[in-house]
Amino acid sequence: MATSSGPEIGYADYLRLDKILDAQDLQSTKFGREAHDEMLFIVIHQAYELWFKQILHELDRVQANFANTPLDDSRLGQILHSLLRVHEILKLLVHQIDILETMTPQDFLEFRDLLTSGSGFQSLQFRLVETRLGLSPEHRLLYDGTGVHSRLKSDERDALVAAEQTQSLVEQLDAWLSRTPFVKAGSFAFSEAYRTAVLDFLTKDIKTLSAHEGLDAEQREAETRALEKAKESFKALFEPEAYEGAWRMSPEAVQAALFITVYRDRPVLHMPSRLLATLMDIDEAMTLWRYRHALMVERMIGVKIGTGGSSGHEYLRKTAEKHRIFTDLFHLSTYLIPRSALPELPAHVERMMKFVYAEEPAE
Amino acid sequence: MATSSGPEIGYADYLRLDKILDAQDLQSTKFGREAHDEMLFIVIHQAYELWFKQILHELDRVQANFANTPLDDSRLGQILHSLLRVHEILKLLVHQIDILETMTPQDFLEFRDLLTSGSGFQSLQFRLVETRLGLSPEHRLLYDGTGVHSRLKSDERDALVAAEQTQSLVEQLDAWLSRTPFVKAGSFAFSEAYRTAVLDFLTKDIKTLSAHEGLDAEQREAETRALEKAKESFKALFEPEAYEGAWRMSPEAVQAALFITVYRDRPVLHMPSRLLATLMDIDEAMTLWRYRHALMVERMIGVKIGTGGSSGHEYLRKTAEKHRIFTDLFHLSTYLIPRSALPELPAHVERMMKFVYAEEPAE
Amino acid sequence: MATSSGPEIGYADYLRLDKILDAQDLQSTKFGREAHDEMLFIVIHQAYELWFKQILHELDRVQANFANTPLDDSRLGQILHSLLRVHEILKLLVHQIDILETMTPQDFLEFRDLLTSGSGFQSLQFRLVETRLGLSPEHRLLYDGTGVHSRLKSDERDALVAAEQTQSLVEQLDAWLSRTPFVKAGSFAFSEAYRTAVLDFLTKDIKTLSAHEGLDAEQREAETRALEKAKESFKALFEPEAYEGAWRMSPEAVQAALFITVYRDRPVLHMPSRLLATLMDIDEAMTLWRYRHALMVERMIGVKIGTGGSSGHEYLRKTAEKHRIFTDLFHLSTYLIPRSALPELPAHVERMMKFVYAEEPAE
Amino acid sequence: MATSSGPEIGYADYLRLDKILDAQDLQSTKFGREAHDEMLFIVIHQAYELWFKQILHELDRVQANFANTPLDDSRLGQILHSLLRVHEILKLLVHQIDILETMTPQDFLEFRDLLTSGSGFQSLQFRLVETRLGLSPEHRLLYDGTGVHSRLKSDERDALVAAEQTQSLVEQLDAWLSRTPFVKAGSFAFSEAYRTAVLDFLTKDIKTLSAHEGLDAEQREAETRALEKAKESFKALFEPEAYEGAWRMSPEAVQAALFITVYRDRPVLHMPSRLLATLMDIDEAMTLWRYRHALMVERMIGVKIGTGGSSGHEYLRKTAEKHRIFTDLFHLSTYLIPRSALPELPAHVERMMKFVYAEEPAE
Repeated sequence: MATSSGPEIGYADYLRLDKILDAQDLQSTKFGREAHDEMLFIVIHQAYELWFKQILHELDRVQANFANTPLDDSRLGQILHSLLRVHEILKLLVHQIDILETMTPQDFLEFRDLLTSGSGFQSLQFRLVETRLGLSPEHRLLYDGTGVHSRLKSDERDALVAAEQTQSLVEQLDAWLSRTPFVKAGSFAFSEAYRTAVLDFLTKDIKTLSAHEGLDAEQREAETRALEKAKESFKALFEPEAYEGAWRMSPEAVQAALFITVYRDRPVLHMPSRLLATLMDIDEAMTLWRYRHALMVERMIGVKIGTGGSSGHEYLRKTAEKHRIFTDLFHLSTYLIPRSALPELPAHVERMMKFVYAEEPAE
Repeated sequence: MATSSGPEIGYADYLRLDKILDAQDLQSTKFGREAHDEMLFIVIHQAYELWFKQILHELDRVQANFANTPLDDSRLGQILHSLLRVHEILKLLVHQIDILETMTPQDFLEFRDLLTSGSGFQSLQFRLVETRLGLSPEHRLLYDGTGVHSRLKSDERDALVAAEQTQSLVEQLDAWLSRTPFVKAGSFAFSEAYRTAVLDFLTKDIKTLSAHEGLDAEQREAETRALEKAKESFKALFEPEAYEGAWRMSPEAVQAALFITVYRDRPVLHMPSRLLATLMDIDEAMTLWRYRHALMVERMIGVKIGTGGSSGHEYLRKTAEKHRIFTDLFHLSTYLIPRSALPELPAHVERMMKFVYAEEPAE
Repeated sequence: MATSSGPEIGYADYLRLDKILDAQDLQSTKFGREAHDEMLFIVIHQAYELWFKQILHELDRVQANFANTPLDDSRLGQILHSLLRVHEILKLLVHQIDILETMTPQDFLEFRDLLTSGSGFQSLQFRLVETRLGLSPEHRLLYDGTGVHSRLKSDERDALVAAEQTQSLVEQLDAWLSRTPFVKAGSFAFSEAYRTAVLDFLTKDIKTLSAHEGLDAEQREAETRALEKAKESFKALFEPEAYEGAWRMSPEAVQAALFITVYRDRPVLHMPSRLLATLMDIDEAMTLWRYRHALMVERMIGVKIGTGGSSGHEYLRKTAEKHRIFTDLFHLSTYLIPRSALPELPAHVERMMKFVYAEEPAE
Repeated sequence: MATSSGPEIGYADYLRLDKILDAQDLQSTKFGREAHDEMLFIVIHQAYELWFKQILHELDRVQANFANTPLDDSRLGQILHSLLRVHEILKLLVHQIDILETMTPQDFLEFRDLLTSGSGFQSLQFRLVETRLGLSPEHRLLYDGTGVHSRLKSDERDALVAAEQTQSLVEQLDAWLSRTPFVKAGSFAFSEAYRTAVLDFLTKDIKTLSAHEGLDAEQREAETRALEKAKESFKALFEPEAYEGAWRMSPEAVQAALFITVYRDRPVLHMPSRLLATLMDIDEAMTLWRYRHALMVERMIGVKIGTGGSSGHEYLRKTAEKHRIFTDLFHLSTYLIPRSALPELPAHVERMMKFVYAEEPAE
């Protein structure tokens, strides 16, 4: 390929198709009982690994950006761009299951016994994606008392441990959010103003309920209990001692996330609020992928033990819930209040959130 | 519209757009505090209801066809066609959630209080879809001790009860499968031949396991337990007394489904096997829709009580599993054996499964 | 429905299901020859119309925001939010075609003759969407010498004409882009700095080509011609007399769009650059919808005349290209240059594009 | 991996991740100016090639089955299964474009010059897919007077030529359709019965038109012309001399396809009719992929010459139409008539199309 700066290189060489298209070693062929669908099984898993590599490549950039303290606003565009791409990729990975499901259980059976101990559990890259996003070892669901490490080769295990010891995206996010100016600026403290507003709102809600004919006693109670509980977790945000366990991120980070959410119309919060929404999209897409994967496995092997001794669909289904990462962001919605009830921001805070040029009108 | 057989009728009149586009009454407008996103909330739910109507229309045809005993093969094409369409529609309904998620919790909050007692729980059409597919009242997950009936208006309740008292698709399927010829034809009895084959296979599996160095003791035990359990449930297929509870469909139906699955290459089984696969696709799509719906609700209202006093995402998430219908079909994969181990079919059975013309070659 | 502020209203009443689910009048039933698939045909078109209404609702907000001069930055979040939603809706509308394609030509034939003069050509809402985005009457592809007006009822025609006489989104975008500060700030003029850079780059490209062994003479010429042509259209940006016809937007708007594209990393340009990308996404989704629609029609009626005397697929396929709106944005990519070659921005311009708080660091 | 029949092999070794994940050689890195998005560019093209390999693997099976003459009905299930999978894969390939579009033109520009002569034009596998489906050299759109061969390496060229000299799927389909019994069975000849019915129907259509007040003169003429033209092409089906060029498949094949389409309810035609529908789905998905690809290229490089000297989007857009393969199947819909008007089939033909067991009722 003649390039302005380099030697000839053609399509096939550039993409290293010699490697890519020569990497499908069907076990069934090796053992003299070719199973047509083993090709699909291999190809789709290789496609998954290619995409995992791309996701890790995006996380490299995102985390490198977040590693800058303070984070220059100019980096936010690139961070959001990479995360939106990760979300697009995850949506494709969910879609890919449609193709795997064109394999019938009977066809899978033709080569399943050749894979008894290899399984997705052993995908180092997927473990790295989870870990770098913020799934810590202690949050991982054990399988038969053993963790994922036992299923990896030693060099893979080292790579995973190294990742576990590095700051994860959720930790970087926490640090970045905690530094958010505006939340506490001079005489203004969002936490105080907002705290009262939310508690009043929840209290009003409870009153409304008691006067609610539409609900039977049982329901009314249930709703009341839930609202009371919500009140407690919210208070915890402002009481360090009560905080433990109520939230995963630090109180400062949660408060900042709330601030960004409710005042998202301000210019300076446009990108941060999109960032938070995209992280929820990613969490949701990962969860969905796990759930669909579980359904697919159930369909493929029924109640049997999965390849590699995985307990199959039940375990996988549990991870869909248990392995979520940005749950705090999902729970914020409990503590939102109508715009009309939002504390007004002092002029000096509003000003900080505008662009310089707007201060010196160009028109 | 000048037609060969009728008077003029234009696009807008034909589609009754006077009704369709005049059916968005924003409560927020009525109460003088317009919330932009209420329009989306209404439009998307109306779109869901339109599609539910179409699904019911397809089920009408499918069930009318199944009501014919015996079912003429010529009807299978139409039945499969309608079910494939239902699957396509369900995939769209899952996709629609992407649009609803463009509504932020804060924007939902602007009109949420106006809907405190109305909710998807009250969609009669969705209840009818579930019921006609085969979700019986006793399989429904209660909410606060009350069922769905209590949430419907009396005329709606009557319609639901009527549907509950009619034969559901899963019941019609059971009856149709149970009548499958070939499974027991003359001297041949699939159940006997296959039973031994499967039990041998499972026993061999267990032996293999005990010699499996790749697994630690714990895992080996777990797999063994699972295989033993599988053996029991399979035996139950042939022991009426042990059967109760092990399966949802009748033993005859399950055996026929197994027969169709393992001999699906035979001409007469092409359509029936596609039919079974499509029913699993539908079950999976419904489950996925419920699951995504649960995630969306969690994101929208956090740990709060949902509109209409629905307990929100936790309840919804439970229904994703609990409200499945064709689980027996999913579990069949546990009892499949490699083609090489399949009992050979006697010539007279093979012949029955061919087309007449093939008996009197046309070429 | 007991609400904190209003009377009871249930799910069915809130969604006006009395209207929505009572709006399917099958012509085939009326003429005593029920065609099963007419229900799908009606339902899917009604779903389209519901979504068109939502798109118009979003355009209302977007255009109302753009109507503010100057446009306060705080409005950009809402504008982008609505446009992203429109894009999501359009993706769904493309997906819906999958469902319509479950209708076979034979099944469509059973009621096609009842619709001879009604057709999508008569969808007022779709015409309004096109018009408000910026498809002007003179850009519309004629059909049989007649435009879309002739196919509408008089009151519908009035609504369309009114929309045609109002400022479209592309016109509002042009005005907004033309006002972009930074592009010309004090001593700095982007057009001059960038113009030279691009021309140098294109000239260098042409040189590289002539030395390119990888291409045969013919190809080299073709590439050279294309680059020369590109050079001319670019120069036109700065030569009012040569400008006519080369671009659809004003030179000021195109220059600003270029500025936003190449300096998109600057905080103040994050949202504007996402906005431009989203408008291209919308244009692409509309084009794709038209194209898929054309393929579907060809499949459904072959070379026949469409319902309502539409020339069917050929006409539709042409509109996919001819009715595009934001083509100028697509063509910008011809005039991009590597970041390394970008003119450096003077300090006072860089400063204008930052947030106030960043000038008075909060940390 | 302990297997019942083989040695240990783990996940990473089984999938040859050593090759797969080591095949991303970024040119930009090699030339010391790393471009983040080159990874995406390489990964997505590698994913495409993996899927092309899978498609070819399915075509191997489909074509091997079709190579059997006569084709035993038992093979139809497998053929349809593979084609449905190809369709699912093509839908994913279209979806993948969403991910590529997260790359901005500016980011592509950072490494575009390093690829000046390599391009998708050089994907041997894609050429093989096209060729094996039935895109013959003479139907290929030339680019700058040169064909695809000139862009391949000699060994690749040989592989393509070999494929071009082998029977394609469309040719195998033609042969198989032409052998369809029932179309001409004993005294019955579908062509005669149906020919008259269609011509009567078209004539009646024309009459209706002339009495159609809903249309203006111009439109009426246009419709009449189209119907007359349709009449001619249909007649050609039965007049060998007039046939040339009117259709791509043989008259026997087209007639059989028509027979299968209109009598698809008959048991023996269920699978063949699904087969024809799936081939149209595949044709449509390929077309859509080409069209979206063209839009993406336009967005990425504007009016510039593409990598590898491809003329970029205009050429690609043309191929979307020009490179279609199963167009004859799409045009059949022009010659369908309402079920009520279908010629009745003689009893001996109806009987041939049933299953043997149905002749000797099992119930």
